[in-house]
Amino acid sequence: MTKRIKIIGIGAGDPNHLTVQAIDALNEVDVFFLMDKGPSKDKLIAIRREICRRFIRPDRAHRFVDAASPERERDAADYAASIDDLNARKQVVFERLIADELGDGECGGFLTWGDPALYDSTIRIVGEIADSGRHRIEWEVIPGVTSLQALAAKHRTTLNTVGRAVEITTGRRLKGFSEDADTIAVMLDAEHAYRRLEGDDVDIYWGAYVGTEDEILVSGRLSDVADEIERVRNEARARHGWIMDSYLLRKRSPET
Amino acid sequence: MTKRIKIIGIGAGDPNHLTVQAIDALNEVDVFFLMDKGPSKDKLIAIRREICRRFIRPDRAHRFVDAASPERERDAADYAASIDDLNARKQVVFERLIADELGDGECGGFLTWGDPALYDSTIRIVGEIADSGRHRIEWEVIPGVTSLQALAAKHRTTLNTVGRAVEITTGRRLKGFSEDADTIAVMLDAEHAYRRLEGDDVDIYWGAYVGTEDEILVSGRLSDVADEIERVRNEARARHGWIMDSYLLRKRSPET
Repeated sequence: MTKRIKIIGIGAGDPNHLTVQAIDALNEVDVFFLMDKGPSKDKLIAIRREICRRFIRPDRAHRFVDAASPERERDAADYAASIDDLNARKQVVFERLIADELGDGECGGFLTWGDPALYDSTIRIVGEIADSGRHRIEWEVIPGVTSLQALAAKHRTTLNTVGRAVEITTGRRLKGFSEDADTIAVMLDAEHAYRRLEGDDVDIYWGAYVGTEDEILVSGRLSDVADEIERVRNEARARHGWIMDSYLLRKRSPET
Repeated sequence: MTKRIKIIGIGAGDPNHLTVQAIDALNEVDVFFLMDKGPSKDKLIAIRREICRRFIRPDRAHRFVDAASPERERDAADYAASIDDLNARKQVVFERLIADELGDGECGGFLTWGDPALYDSTIRIVGEIADSGRHRIEWEVIPGVTSLQALAAKHRTTLNTVGRAVEITTGRRLKGFSEDADTIAVMLDAEHAYRRLEGDDVDIYWGAYVGTEDEILVSGRLSDVADEIERVRNEARARHGWIMDSYLLRKRSPET
């Protein structure tokens, strides 16, 4: 008997980001694997449970398995090696869950924030386990609204300017505008990487906890609002114990 | 009295891409503006009407206004000028719709393919009309699943590789990989722009009509599958009279 796995994008924090396709998928899952970690864990697990409560039919039996997800060595000297090591340890955890917690013929579900295709390792890890041939697995991926899309919608702005390219990157990699892209969308910024572009004539559209009751939005010319964003960001992180934020940086066009 | 406008992302072709937020928004709209054009018009309007039929409550009255959307001069010598001209003409049409077809206190809806923030002019145009002060408008944007996300999900691949950047661009602009991004996501390719990267060691994940009954997917090493994609693409375009496709290009990592 085959085991089934669904990797379901659940959007950026607002349960109303769930698609009809995601809701249909939730209603086929027998076992939900909860992999959250760190200081945001309680809040994020609460949102997942709320999503299941709201969108799974009352007659549909399901259970939760809470697996302690491995964490990356924050201070590792070699970033790439620490990520490889993390993913190897994650794969061990995922494979144990599939082997031990998911019965033959059952369907397991991973609920991923945003879209499973963007800065999330679940597709890669489940794909490797499926390709290993050690388990009979059928698996599929359900796309979801990313924090960048939720952010752009709340700011009522676009990701791209007319006919131009957009770069999506991380705080770690943010350096500046490439020749093609006049907009950079930044996720996973543990520092205040936007400050590196402050000298340029750039607008920023920033948001934290977008789509939740804690949402904060700030936008403006980067040189005018960088201090405010840094202050608001530090305060929010201190208050919540964690932060989930992202932002767009856009070159100002010459005439504005 | 204020007029309300909702710009609603309806996903990439599968009605099940609709989010709960989008469905709630559909149910507040009094007038839907249908702006499709060209050879795909009949099919795309049929999908929109199907979405409204499926997701709007039967007791909720609404009407459709079909506005002939201006088209760009395909052979214009100056691309940027032809886009500026198109957007100016679109704004005139949108403003006429808002002035004449939407009553005070009513809610108008624009249903946009994919996400309104990506390669769509509705946000820009409605924003300019709202900012003009000529109408009292409250407006909001509802994000939606893009064709790139639907494509990645169907290929069960990611948009980014571990910790790296992604560039989203158009066929027109596609040149090659920037220093940061080892994945390029391409939309709006009227030619066969992927062929420009054929000499590189690149994988392609291509799809057309993704999420619909006509879906076609092809993936592999670009140099192996470029001919097949060009053939399938030309055939599909001839058969349907139009094509809606997108693809990811990814540098092969040295060890594979």
